[in-house]
Amino acid sequence: MNYKMMGRFIAQILTIEGVFMIPAAVISLCYHEGTAAKSFLITMGIIAVLCAVLFLLCKGAPSAFYAKEGLVCVGVSWIVLSLIGCLPFYISREIPKYVDALFEMVSGFTTTGASILPEVESLSHGILYWRSFSHWLGGMGVLVFLLAFTGEKGKGFTMHLLRAESPGPSVGKLVPKMRTTAAILYIIYIGMTILNVIFLLFGDMPLFEAVCTAFGTAGTGGFGIKNDSMASYSPYLQNVTTVFMILFGVNFSCYYLILLRQFTNVLKDEELRLYFGVILGSIVLIVLDTFGLYGTLEETIRHAAFQVGSIITTTGFSTTDFDLWPSFSKTILLCLMVCGACAGSTGGGMKVARIMLVFKGLRRNIRQMLSPRKVEVVRNNGSIVDEKTLANTNAYLSAYIIIIFAVFLIISLDGFSVGTNFSAVLCTFNNIGPGLEAVGPMCNFSGYSDLSTLVLSWAMLAGRLEIFPILVLFSKDTWFRR
Amino acid sequence: MNYKMMGRFIAQILTIEGVFMIPAAVISLCYHEGTAAKSFLITMGIIAVLCAVLFLLCKGAPSAFYAKEGLVCVGVSWIVLSLIGCLPFYISREIPKYVDALFEMVSGFTTTGASILPEVESLSHGILYWRSFSHWLGGMGVLVFLLAFTGEKGKGFTMHLLRAESPGPSVGKLVPKMRTTAAILYIIYIGMTILNVIFLLFGDMPLFEAVCTAFGTAGTGGFGIKNDSMASYSPYLQNVTTVFMILFGVNFSCYYLILLRQFTNVLKDEELRLYFGVILGSIVLIVLDTFGLYGTLEETIRHAAFQVGSIITTTGFSTTDFDLWPSFSKTILLCLMVCGACAGSTGGGMKVARIMLVFKGLRRNIRQMLSPRKVEVVRNNGSIVDEKTLANTNAYLSAYIIIIFAVFLIISLDGFSVGTNFSAVLCTFNNIGPGLEAVGPMCNFSGYSDLSTLVLSWAMLAGRLEIFPILVLFSKDTWFRR
Repeated sequence: MNYKMMGRFIAQILTIEGVFMIPAAVISLCYHEGTAAKSFLITMGIIAVLCAVLFLLCKGAPSAFYAKEGLVCVGVSWIVLSLIGCLPFYISREIPKYVDALFEMVSGFTTTGASILPEVESLSHGILYWRSFSHWLGGMGVLVFLLAFTGEKGKGFTMHLLRAESPGPSVGKLVPKMRTTAAILYIIYIGMTILNVIFLLFGDMPLFEAVCTAFGTAGTGGFGIKNDSMASYSPYLQNVTTVFMILFGVNFSCYYLILLRQFTNVLKDEELRLYFGVILGSIVLIVLDTFGLYGTLEETIRHAAFQVGSIITTTGFSTTDFDLWPSFSKTILLCLMVCGACAGSTGGGMKVARIMLVFKGLRRNIRQMLSPRKVEVVRNNGSIVDEKTLANTNAYLSAYIIIIFAVFLIISLDGFSVGTNFSAVLCTFNNIGPGLEAVGPMCNFSGYSDLSTLVLSWAMLAGRLEIFPILVLFSKDTWFRR
Repeated sequence: MNYKMMGRFIAQILTIEGVFMIPAAVISLCYHEGTAAKSFLITMGIIAVLCAVLFLLCKGAPSAFYAKEGLVCVGVSWIVLSLIGCLPFYISREIPKYVDALFEMVSGFTTTGASILPEVESLSHGILYWRSFSHWLGGMGVLVFLLAFTGEKGKGFTMHLLRAESPGPSVGKLVPKMRTTAAILYIIYIGMTILNVIFLLFGDMPLFEAVCTAFGTAGTGGFGIKNDSMASYSPYLQNVTTVFMILFGVNFSCYYLILLRQFTNVLKDEELRLYFGVILGSIVLIVLDTFGLYGTLEETIRHAAFQVGSIITTTGFSTTDFDLWPSFSKTILLCLMVCGACAGSTGGGMKVARIMLVFKGLRRNIRQMLSPRKVEVVRNNGSIVDEKTLANTNAYLSAYIIIIFAVFLIISLDGFSVGTNFSAVLCTFNNIGPGLEAVGPMCNFSGYSDLSTLVLSWAMLAGRLEIFPILVLFSKDTWFRR
């Protein structure tokens, strides 16, 4: 492990975090929230000192970057980002316990949206802004941001980082240069976020609320600025959010193809078709199942579509307490939690593309059992999927299951029911937010002990970074082998 | 698909089932249970007619057997065995609904032990015997029995069948000839069952009860003949059952090695060591967690050991209502359900060996990520595991997860809680028996609709046959390609 290189890299990441705190501090000052403003300034000071020390210590680090360094740097930098990023919550005393503040910050960066706060309306504007902004930054990825807009380069640097931070079974390049790819992704992301804000403003939402809501939607995060999430907003605002949640769950390379006017390629994309198919199917089933629970058909469809969009994209906003829905609808939501959005989107979960590969790999395996001498290949969008991607997908699935059971076991120490714990694991690990029963949409995670809070925070990070950048941190080989 | 061959094969299997009904009919007559005796005789008559027709129709079938035929024959014959085997329950009216009778029979043959009966003490002796005997036959496998004790042979026949019916990631031959291997397995099985009966008799258990209990223990099934399962038996009888449950969860090739006095090979077996390690660890954790719930330490340990042994071997007997245990202990049991016993034992679940392979495969994958140019292999007991076994293990895991979610979704239509449904799926699919909440050890599965009952029966079969022999039945290639 090249420690100097890692140190310099973390310093760069922290610098970005510090710069992004400036708007939050300004907002605090505008709203005359002295304590919050002070807490941001103190944190920025701490970041400045840390960065200065790191840059000094790690002078002359080599720039050659290997797969291992890519994975480890991604894992470590997300942890450091969260450890420092939560300081404003803690210093301002708006979240008095550090462990809770950390959970909230991790939940923000990983775009989970699970909260330990019983209510959010008493938070200051600066803190609310920072909380929602963390979703936006975490959604597309802070390292992708670093790639896109700073001069950092080096042998293999960009590819390994983008691979480790971007969601999905395989990372596609939009253009030959990875740095340009990252920039294109961020430009599309910024454009769509602005569009979302404009649509919300048309529905008479105040600017501050519109920006925060758009951050939560774009990053598929789900932190609300109202205690009832989106329940008290008008049907128009709810529908706009439904549409944008679903749009942000689409693979961003599809938008690039649209910009290039390659519409047929977009329409033929297998993952995209399955994604919309699952959404449509789930909405229909839930509407049939919850029929009669709401006054009108319009309301039933609106709530069903909102919740399906919110859960499959792992956003976690809610317009109604779906914990009161019948068992079948709740189980559909649990399945969607595991499914997740498209690869290369800001959403979490296993990703539709990966589930498709699991199914196709299984079908191949059954065929091979029936005729052992024939060689079968797996295809995606017409081209052959290489065996390494399949092997990695299977490794991902194994790790996914093992982590779910491990976390499930640890948090059960706190004595909540099996349903609560199981949904808490699925909701944090898949970066969704609210679960069922005691962690349902109208409840929060504050009941868990410090140990469980930390373990669930860890699960959120593992989920967002697709497990391996976090898992390698536990390997002896990572730290002691050259 | 060679239909003639399949027909002849099913006729042979049905003949064995019919012959095994004779003791049940005799027991019914001894206890003067006319209706039960009549129902067995009618069923045997139906079997005789069916077999005659099948043998006539399928005369001159070729004896060459391929992998595909092996898989399909195993799947189909287990389904037919259950469809016919449940007739005595239905004809005698002791289970008035055919779907329920089928569930009970599948639960018997697959050694699940889940019941739709609210109480069993009113059943006739003949029916109770047949119910428990089905565990014994299903535990080691009826096709293995066919191999061991009849003259059936043919090119590739034995290997493909044994592979499809025997649990575990890879099937080991004890001796070069598969038929001899099957015979050795059954002889060990019969010997240990007799030993179990003798130990129970020493504890003053009546002979009929001892035989039925030993059947349930040996097959790791779990049908009891008392309404409270094993709760009212003496501590001695409970402890004997604990020990025998755990012993029947061991890979039977270990017993063969013991007979050959190769003790060091047994002690070095990685799976065996992990199996006992998990059992010991779980008992300790549960004792610590449930401390104070029972009067004495002896009682706490006894209940903990019994339940751990019962769940990890997927037997499903119980001495106490573990649904009342704290959340942590219940979650340990849920994890053990998924884990299951050793490969090559009569137990169900994923099997310890397979979980070991999943972990080792994952570790290999992480190492490969860290140093992409190095070739890493997976070893078990010192020798290299071939890539095909690893690929099959991963395919198994994928199928396992997909089936769990599919069944979970379908049975949620009945409106039970998420915890009930989830444990019902795990308990049937892993062939355990009782679950938690509404399907807990003191409850039963009678609340589910016909659809759910059928789907859960299907899950039990898929679990017992390790998925693929049942899954291939849904493939177009199976039926229409030559």
